[in-house]
Amino acid sequence: MNRALSIRSRKKDDHAKEASKHTFSISTLRGMHQAELSKKLFKLIKTENHCIEAYETAGRERLSIASQLSDWGEATNDDAVSDISDKIGVIMSEIGEQEDLFAQNLEDYRSILKQIRNIEASVQPSRDQKVKISDEIQKLKYKEPSSPKLVTLEQELVRAEAQNLVAEAQLTNITRQKVKEAYDLHFAATIERAEKQIILAKYGRRLLNLLDDTPVVPGDVRQPFAQAGEARQVLADAEQELQRWEPHLEPIHSNAGGLGTNLMPMDDRSTRATSEVPDPVADPVPTEKPAAEAQGTHLEQATA
Amino acid sequence: MNRALSIRSRKKDDHAKEASKHTFSISTLRGMHQAELSKKLFKLIKTENHCIEAYETAGRERLSIASQLSDWGEATNDDAVSDISDKIGVIMSEIGEQEDLFAQNLEDYRSILKQIRNIEASVQPSRDQKVKISDEIQKLKYKEPSSPKLVTLEQELVRAEAQNLVAEAQLTNITRQKVKEAYDLHFAATIERAEKQIILAKYGRRLLNLLDDTPVVPGDVRQPFAQAGEARQVLADAEQELQRWEPHLEPIHSNAGGLGTNLMPMDDRSTRATSEVPDPVADPVPTEKPAAEAQGTHLEQATA
Repeated sequence: MNRALSIRSRKKDDHAKEASKHTFSISTLRGMHQAELSKKLFKLIKTENHCIEAYETAGRERLSIASQLSDWGEATNDDAVSDISDKIGVIMSEIGEQEDLFAQNLEDYRSILKQIRNIEASVQPSRDQKVKISDEIQKLKYKEPSSPKLVTLEQELVRAEAQNLVAEAQLTNITRQKVKEAYDLHFAATIERAEKQIILAKYGRRLLNLLDDTPVVPGDVRQPFAQAGEARQVLADAEQELQRWEPHLEPIHSNAGGLGTNLMPMDDRSTRATSEVPDPVADPVPTEKPAAEAQGTHLEQATA
Repeated sequence: MNRALSIRSRKKDDHAKEASKHTFSISTLRGMHQAELSKKLFKLIKTENHCIEAYETAGRERLSIASQLSDWGEATNDDAVSDISDKIGVIMSEIGEQEDLFAQNLEDYRSILKQIRNIEASVQPSRDQKVKISDEIQKLKYKEPSSPKLVTLEQELVRAEAQNLVAEAQLTNITRQKVKEAYDLHFAATIERAEKQIILAKYGRRLLNLLDDTPVVPGDVRQPFAQAGEARQVLADAEQELQRWEPHLEPIHSNAGGLGTNLMPMDDRSTRATSEVPDPVADPVPTEKPAAEAQGTHLEQATA
């Protein structure tokens, strides 16, 4: 593995200047009180929040642009430009809605990362306790080698080590399971947004072909726009294709089905794909989302 | 055409609350000095700028998250999590780069809208002049019906009307041509981002399948990560597929090829697709972009 050429090493020089600068706030400072173990993920979860906000902004601005485009088209007093710009506005609104849905899905992915962060934070005291007892033993051995307290401490250390072994097993079990779940969801959301926006953009291009841009000479009157019916049909087709959309993902296979509530393996292990898990957080297919909200509201209203 | 159900009418109630609020600034106030005709497009171009900034932010944060993910994975001291998180980081960086490329393409689309706005602004004085002379004639006819100045004004009006006829023809010619060019580019950019991100997300999902999430019991030692070679191959495959990507768009047909530099029809009109126009602004296929910058820099470095 060429670690020197991985993203890890490049960050030191490349990303230093790209690192986003956010103002300090109470919630930023709070990060400093995080357990050492969960600090990195804590920061990542915070950065992901900024990323999600950017997609929400993009979606909102897209909706605003769509309605401004339609308004502008109307003001041109050109029937053809008016109709086509209005319908492109519908397509653009829907593209904006898909950005927003994507942001919602990223929020779900983010909450899975939080589960790993929480386990990390809870495992930290177990590590600290082990180190603390070891340190005490070392000090006492040096200062007072025959102290009867040493026996008690050695017994405590054995217990702390056993407790930590459990904690570390829980940590690795949950980490691997949740990393797979989180990025399963993330990549599924990326694909969903992409596939739906391709559908929309494709029909947007068809609308453009209905606008005749043959130049006219001064005094010429443009032919009345005769493609209104066709344009309406394009939107109806777009809506139908968007409604018919469903995910076709290569499943992510998981063996974490054998993980008990105690975060230890259960006896009955079974292989399954996380994509099929009915757990709403793990499910990368947002079937729970109201269909009207997720798919084609703008198209539906425009073609009703 | 069901205008009541178009985006235009809905904006009044739906989008009022969604309208983005930006602080006033000199450049915002400048909008108020724009010619009436170009005001709407001026505002749209401004809003598009906010949208582009949002995509730039999303791309930048995505790069930052990618490198944080890789760092976190390394800190887990789990070989498998370390390797997979690093490689997912590479995929995520590339997805971020695609957001940035998308923002650059939107910038090109935005500059085409500016061409329409500029023509609108330049046509406004011609409209104003016509109205001004008509008003003068009306006033004079009322105040001093036998004034010899009336003849001069009537002659001026004929000239102003002729000039305006030309201006309006230029306006409609450029508007229709540029609307098609602008949204051809916009939708092509949407499709490009989507198709490339689907490729990346698909390989990201394959990486996830290399991470074994079988739960372990306390004290168990995880098997050494044996899939490093396979993971490297997944990145190499992703890079290759991304490099091979090329646009497959339904062409946008244009008759604007017959538009002369005077913005009037030339004698020799020919139908052509704007997608094939060599004009760099009109070309929706950003073949001029350095391939290394647009496609797979992160993948290339990671698999070199």
